[in-house]
Amino acid sequence: MSTIKKVVLAYSGGLDTSVILKWLRETYGCEVVTFTADIGQGEEVAPARAKAEALGVKEIYVEELCEEFARDYVFPMFRANTLYEGEYLLGTSIARPLIAKRLAEIASETSADAIAHGATGKGNDQVRFELGAYALRPDIQVIAPWREWDLTSREKLLTYAETHDIPVEGKRGTRSPYSMDANLLHISYEGGPLEDPWFEPEEAMWRWTVSPEAAPNEPTYLELDYRCGDIVAINGEVLSPAKVLEMLNRLGGENGIGRLDLVENRYVGMKSRGCYETPGGTIMLKAHRAMESLTLDREVAHLKDELMPRYASLIYNGYWWSPERSLLQQLIDASQATVNGTVRLKLYKGNVTVVGRQSKTDSLFAPEIATFEEDAGAYNQQDAEGFIKLNALRLRIDALKKLSL
Amino acid sequence: MSTIKKVVLAYSGGLDTSVILKWLRETYGCEVVTFTADIGQGEEVAPARAKAEALGVKEIYVEELCEEFARDYVFPMFRANTLYEGEYLLGTSIARPLIAKRLAEIASETSADAIAHGATGKGNDQVRFELGAYALRPDIQVIAPWREWDLTSREKLLTYAETHDIPVEGKRGTRSPYSMDANLLHISYEGGPLEDPWFEPEEAMWRWTVSPEAAPNEPTYLELDYRCGDIVAINGEVLSPAKVLEMLNRLGGENGIGRLDLVENRYVGMKSRGCYETPGGTIMLKAHRAMESLTLDREVAHLKDELMPRYASLIYNGYWWSPERSLLQQLIDASQATVNGTVRLKLYKGNVTVVGRQSKTDSLFAPEIATFEEDAGAYNQQDAEGFIKLNALRLRIDALKKLSL
Amino acid sequence: MSTIKKVVLAYSGGLDTSVILKWLRETYGCEVVTFTADIGQGEEVAPARAKAEALGVKEIYVEELCEEFARDYVFPMFRANTLYEGEYLLGTSIARPLIAKRLAEIASETSADAIAHGATGKGNDQVRFELGAYALRPDIQVIAPWREWDLTSREKLLTYAETHDIPVEGKRGTRSPYSMDANLLHISYEGGPLEDPWFEPEEAMWRWTVSPEAAPNEPTYLELDYRCGDIVAINGEVLSPAKVLEMLNRLGGENGIGRLDLVENRYVGMKSRGCYETPGGTIMLKAHRAMESLTLDREVAHLKDELMPRYASLIYNGYWWSPERSLLQQLIDASQATVNGTVRLKLYKGNVTVVGRQSKTDSLFAPEIATFEEDAGAYNQQDAEGFIKLNALRLRIDALKKLSL
Amino acid sequence: MSTIKKVVLAYSGGLDTSVILKWLRETYGCEVVTFTADIGQGEEVAPARAKAEALGVKEIYVEELCEEFARDYVFPMFRANTLYEGEYLLGTSIARPLIAKRLAEIASETSADAIAHGATGKGNDQVRFELGAYALRPDIQVIAPWREWDLTSREKLLTYAETHDIPVEGKRGTRSPYSMDANLLHISYEGGPLEDPWFEPEEAMWRWTVSPEAAPNEPTYLELDYRCGDIVAINGEVLSPAKVLEMLNRLGGENGIGRLDLVENRYVGMKSRGCYETPGGTIMLKAHRAMESLTLDREVAHLKDELMPRYASLIYNGYWWSPERSLLQQLIDASQATVNGTVRLKLYKGNVTVVGRQSKTDSLFAPEIATFEEDAGAYNQQDAEGFIKLNALRLRIDALKKLSL
Repeated sequence: MSTIKKVVLAYSGGLDTSVILKWLRETYGCEVVTFTADIGQGEEVAPARAKAEALGVKEIYVEELCEEFARDYVFPMFRANTLYEGEYLLGTSIARPLIAKRLAEIASETSADAIAHGATGKGNDQVRFELGAYALRPDIQVIAPWREWDLTSREKLLTYAETHDIPVEGKRGTRSPYSMDANLLHISYEGGPLEDPWFEPEEAMWRWTVSPEAAPNEPTYLELDYRCGDIVAINGEVLSPAKVLEMLNRLGGENGIGRLDLVENRYVGMKSRGCYETPGGTIMLKAHRAMESLTLDREVAHLKDELMPRYASLIYNGYWWSPERSLLQQLIDASQATVNGTVRLKLYKGNVTVVGRQSKTDSLFAPEIATFEEDAGAYNQQDAEGFIKLNALRLRIDALKKLSL
Repeated sequence: MSTIKKVVLAYSGGLDTSVILKWLRETYGCEVVTFTADIGQGEEVAPARAKAEALGVKEIYVEELCEEFARDYVFPMFRANTLYEGEYLLGTSIARPLIAKRLAEIASETSADAIAHGATGKGNDQVRFELGAYALRPDIQVIAPWREWDLTSREKLLTYAETHDIPVEGKRGTRSPYSMDANLLHISYEGGPLEDPWFEPEEAMWRWTVSPEAAPNEPTYLELDYRCGDIVAINGEVLSPAKVLEMLNRLGGENGIGRLDLVENRYVGMKSRGCYETPGGTIMLKAHRAMESLTLDREVAHLKDELMPRYASLIYNGYWWSPERSLLQQLIDASQATVNGTVRLKLYKGNVTVVGRQSKTDSLFAPEIATFEEDAGAYNQQDAEGFIKLNALRLRIDALKKLSL
Repeated sequence: MSTIKKVVLAYSGGLDTSVILKWLRETYGCEVVTFTADIGQGEEVAPARAKAEALGVKEIYVEELCEEFARDYVFPMFRANTLYEGEYLLGTSIARPLIAKRLAEIASETSADAIAHGATGKGNDQVRFELGAYALRPDIQVIAPWREWDLTSREKLLTYAETHDIPVEGKRGTRSPYSMDANLLHISYEGGPLEDPWFEPEEAMWRWTVSPEAAPNEPTYLELDYRCGDIVAINGEVLSPAKVLEMLNRLGGENGIGRLDLVENRYVGMKSRGCYETPGGTIMLKAHRAMESLTLDREVAHLKDELMPRYASLIYNGYWWSPERSLLQQLIDASQATVNGTVRLKLYKGNVTVVGRQSKTDSLFAPEIATFEEDAGAYNQQDAEGFIKLNALRLRIDALKKLSL
Repeated sequence: MSTIKKVVLAYSGGLDTSVILKWLRETYGCEVVTFTADIGQGEEVAPARAKAEALGVKEIYVEELCEEFARDYVFPMFRANTLYEGEYLLGTSIARPLIAKRLAEIASETSADAIAHGATGKGNDQVRFELGAYALRPDIQVIAPWREWDLTSREKLLTYAETHDIPVEGKRGTRSPYSMDANLLHISYEGGPLEDPWFEPEEAMWRWTVSPEAAPNEPTYLELDYRCGDIVAINGEVLSPAKVLEMLNRLGGENGIGRLDLVENRYVGMKSRGCYETPGGTIMLKAHRAMESLTLDREVAHLKDELMPRYASLIYNGYWWSPERSLLQQLIDASQATVNGTVRLKLYKGNVTVVGRQSKTDSLFAPEIATFEEDAGAYNQQDAEGFIKLNALRLRIDALKKLSL
């Protein structure tokens, strides 16, 4: 009775999406195309191909997308100094639009009617996948098994796997208590003991960074070169966006940088607790602000700061492929034309400290004007009187009115 | 010829304002009232009284304003998670409105015609003093000697002091190369070698904090109790606002927390470089966000985040005593009614880490809904489908229109 | 099997909600409480009681809520100069929160488990009713028959009515082609020929206003007295909020004022075309801006203007009972303390023209400063030079940087 | 002693700027270059050349800039639906950047050191001229005679003219009581009896429009074709931007459209009262919103609405040539790609009524979804339940928390 003949599944090769693969065929009687992407999550994607083949999939997409991810998603987002709710670097959120795009494109390439994903009905990821897919393929159908099926516990899932010849790695009860997600920008942890917001995560949970305590006793200095708001070289070595992220992840991770423990507000209406490691991103945010501080006009910087929370919410909520995000991006990108130069940083036991910034071409820092020494007339201090008097005028008229009553 | 008969001078007791005191009398033939406030700058104010007396001042105001400063200025500002240009905790800016208010009030009490201050014509402080004074005493006159006189170098100032019997402490050439400002919230450094934004500040510059390197190898844990967005107790001990700041400054300073090195945009139109130590404030910002993350509605939190940059600019630019700041404050304060509970923090070598947050009365964290486990129907995952479908509708209509062309 | 024992129905007495009444009993086997409110829609509510009695309803609420509606909903909204999408005065939107509140309260009073309404699944009203009800009674259940039943056409509805002994007034096919909604603030028209946005509404559609062509050839002048942003008297006669609206509706309607023809964006994701008559509201908006122009500080006015679109969207989307609307309202209300005085208007053939405004207590218009004549030193024109120079400083530094390259 | 050798004067040919011309030579001993532009003010510019020649000016620039003004300033501003303080169409403000640009360019062409203008020290125009000039020629000097000289009354000005052989047209005391400014977009009136905000302007003041009372008894219908947010044809006739404005001014003026009587907040800190006639602009604003209502995505439209007040203030305050205005313009312009189609309007005695809008290429109005009739499944009403439930979730959690206390 279903009209779905072929579905493109975002397939990790793990238990959950393997179960989904079988369940889709069984429930919808449809063919399944698998799509597995390497976006820097740190796990091999080759096994996913083998598993898909073993499960009889005929059309298998396995793709290395690290550069595209870093260049077209992560870097543009960092141009805005993006933080959700003041702290979250959006590591999960920013990876979804790329997956959604490829799902939609592969659906077109394979003449599939639908896409499917393994995100639950409680989280933000379902929204991000589906809004993206609908925006790019408005006629697509979406299957979200977690919202449909009755496999509502891990036990039921394992039982389903066993009865459907899906290989289960490891034994029951041995897996991590955390729900994790990783890509080139970050790794996240949710669930399990973290569901108590008073619980301090145990050291063993963190996977990408050493603790500040375990970090080296000597600081690491580094210099980042910027062109149009993007890092193009580290310590003088020209690097691609993905290589920049990789190197900063390594340096940050070694120095205990980038851990975050947060209660955040999901788009679907609830609060949730998440822990994140974003070593490279943490460095990038700090450095980018420093580069902008030297090269961006004040009002441009302030405009960006005022628009940023909205831009961050758009990404968090899954609206990357919306026209309003696109317009904001154009404004943000245009602002970066002058964000060129070098930032010098010190990394030390969890701290990222800016220790220098310079721009041969675009510095707006005018030492001859700013100086505390004599400035030879570069700035006329008497101008300040008129500036203040006229800025005060409305305040004085307000106050005089009250006095006269 | 001047119509100024009496002027209230913001008097530190130092060389500059002592010179100003003499210069005011000489230039304007007016009487001078001195006002010296202890707002936690860490220097004794008693000597200022002695010096004023020695200089023949008849009306001398020396006031301890630490509690008022913390309670009515610092704490309200932190309710907004205020950061100027993404990083600056506004330590200098927030102290000026209180000084401006007392200058205006003392002018009224002493029937003075004018106020005077020792801020230069290049900085933000002149604006903050004067906008405040004009807003509270619209008929007041303002004398800003640095904008008027010809004592445009330190040498000339010293010569003036010597020829006018003003005692100069220390010899020529021995003072700090930095222009500093301190109060209960922070200490700042500007000028000298910092005028090169590529220059890394030397360790000896910093006065309030040890370096992360020199901080203890053991972390410090602490618990902060909040009521209506304000810290009311530390580790269970009820403390006044000033005592909270004092204690957090001590704990932060010992753990290498709160250093900032920044290029910022002044209201008068130039970029300047400043270094700041705000140990207690750095802890407060992090903890307050954590307390809000548990107790504040999502849209309220986002509204606050979007208004914050404007609120920060108002304070930075000197508009504390404006009606628009007052309105924003009312909104911010009203939002804090539910910000009650406890935050647990770990301080370690420059890092402030939130390791727990709880609120017995106001937590909006609903574990039964957020859980990754079965939720017994607390949340209906099928609701997400309609939620996404309708949020996607406009995107799909947009996309269909393009397809049909 | 349903757990719903009693439901409170928003009951107009018309065909649709009478069918719903029967359908609820039949489908849910539940008792129905009816709630009918007079909010100025211009139809008698007494017949609704008789009809409910005839249909065997035991608990019948019929309430006159015009004053509450005008005072607690319409007037607060107009303090913000609220317009949705630049034009719509939110006449329908603002009535829903009051209905939602009474539904929730009556559910509590009658120990009902659920509420029900006659809004369709395509419009904004369902959202407004339900968000309000959930916010005030988080445990309530909601029944929206139009989303559930199969009576998807007028024919089916009429057949259902006939087979269930529901009296149908008028014959099939004679009703208005428009879907209408009215209350003390406005009447709206949707559907039918309006679904073609190129179609010009016929004159016969409009019910509250004469056309500008048919309006009197002589203008009507009137004076509105404001206290704290609200109109308290017209032409010197003190009037309650509802009486103010009534009188302005009459005066506006007679003078052809307040018609609007709009394509708007619904919260559920589609565009729709609506025509509105809001004669009193159109006058109020124009007059309130005029009163504020004289009595509101510039930056306060601008802050309100920047927040207004968000505030309007909150009301349009149904978030009246949200904490963020409440916070914005507090800011808006606080801003109105000085909005006192009188506005003089001319009404003429569709035009509302402000011809005078004055405030004995709160005018910030300072003629001695603003005058084009000599001002005897009230304003020092030389202050403007410094004001401009410092506002230009960053622009000049930017430009000099480009020149030097 | 002056370092100014040559100055470019914005020269109207009238008494004031003729006096300035002489005064500049006398005061600064400098050569004067005159610049006179036709931007549609409705006065011949040729006489200005003759007068300048008679006054011995050697370098005379007289330029026809109507098309440039309409195309590069007026049209881009209307893409944003720009209103200052909710009502003012910025007719004066938008002309200044073009004058400032030409002054700066002519200064470069003629190797002048300075520019001069005839704006007073109290108004906004001085700011707009000078910020523009400084942004485009950061090294330029500015002479604003009204801020410098002692010709502070009309009498003194006339005496100066007589003693310096400057021809004065008309006798003393016969000129208009209003200070006026005109260009292709509007004419403004300030001063004189308007300085009493309770005074209703007399009919004789208005110059461009007939009163609604005097307008024809028959409506005028017209159709405007839009391409990328700009009007490109009226009633099917392709017209240049200036011709569009001219024609709409004529049609609007004949139909009594576009009068505005306003108290506004100047950038220099005072309130002032102005009356404006903007017949074409009033039509354009209404029509553009209608075109956007059909073709612009909801969130794009809302983003524009939220940014508009800031954009309007930038123009009003003189920041056209700032980087932040430029960035906002890029966002606004990019949003207009889909604003294509036709708007049908009715003009009648002061009213502009939209009576139809269509877009063959870009309409986002989906009648099959919006319809009140059966939609054959185009929209699934059941989706609304989940949409509302998840949007309500945070409100319900908030409310449940309160209940549980």
